[in-house]
Amino acid sequence: MEREAALELVKKQLTDHRYQHTLGVMETAIVLAQQYGGDEQKAELAAIFHDYAKFRPKEEMKEIIASQGFPEDLLHFNSELWHAPAGMYLVEKEAGINDPEVLDAIRYHTSGRPAMTLLEKIIYLADYIEPGRHFPGVDEVREMAKENLDKALIMAIKNTISFLIKKNQTVYPDTFYTYNDLITKLED
Amino acid sequence: MEREAALELVKKQLTDHRYQHTLGVMETAIVLAQQYGGDEQKAELAAIFHDYAKFRPKEEMKEIIASQGFPEDLLHFNSELWHAPAGMYLVEKEAGINDPEVLDAIRYHTSGRPAMTLLEKIIYLADYIEPGRHFPGVDEVREMAKENLDKALIMAIKNTISFLIKKNQTVYPDTFYTYNDLITKLED
Repeated sequence: MEREAALELVKKQLTDHRYQHTLGVMETAIVLAQQYGGDEQKAELAAIFHDYAKFRPKEEMKEIIASQGFPEDLLHFNSELWHAPAGMYLVEKEAGINDPEVLDAIRYHTSGRPAMTLLEKIIYLADYIEPGRHFPGVDEVREMAKENLDKALIMAIKNTISFLIKKNQTVYPDTFYTYNDLITKLED
Repeated sequence: MEREAALELVKKQLTDHRYQHTLGVMETAIVLAQQYGGDEQKAELAAIFHDYAKFRPKEEMKEIIASQGFPEDLLHFNSELWHAPAGMYLVEKEAGINDPEVLDAIRYHTSGRPAMTLLEKIIYLADYIEPGRHFPGVDEVREMAKENLDKALIMAIKNTISFLIKKNQTVYPDTFYTYNDLITKLED
């Protein structure tokens, strides 16, 4: 799908603020793909569609997770996680995206997962560091992203885990499995 | 087993420093048991024996974990975790302790586990806050332990997770699951 057609589809799904965020993720993902030898077109497409389901009603996201074979334990964790798998499903159904790499990058862009693909890492990180993001620690991750993709990703995931536990929120198991996986490979 | 006989058995297994720590855990565990309606005798016994295997050779601990039905994934995580399950096994075999509650309190005193028993919580926390412990955050946990066992336990586990991820160390899944479990119940 061409960029303009894709952007037109997602624009209808998002608030202006979230659409601007999406443009930032798109630009950042393309830069990361160039830098780390990823597929630029897939990075662009996954970035454009990553938040497609962000504003769907919770009930609809719940129903998709429960009926489409996603892990049901998601429903016991923060609902912020739901738009990623629900988005994967809706993007295939409503926008006709069927590249499994692109779909997985959308599916895992919030939780991460062990053994992430390069494209999944690019989308996760682009979502975290796009220019519209402003929170403690983001500049350090941006700097590291210029040097080492995995180290930047580890910093982002560490920040996320620290943020969640500071707020006494649960941490979805895939997130700490992703952390353990990346740390173990870093030590090798 | 009487206190003196038990202490004599563990003293031979430990350095002086670790034996002093054990006495601190014992006293703290008894106070916590009194305070929260736990079994004082079981708390005393589990505390005395909790570090029984601390100074066994790594190879011996590995062999016990691999051959005695403990989760083998332990062997891919920090070896600091191994003395707890190895200790459970050795305390039964060498000291004849066979109370399953006491044995589980020894087994899970380092990792924690979801749905911890009162005795397991007491031993985990006593190990963390006994008077010989000095590290950032311990005083806050000591204070909370006077008011709310679960909240103190959550503080201890949060500190542990934060400490590990700051040092880029892996976190054993049971530790995260313990955190999620306690947080979820706290919200109820």
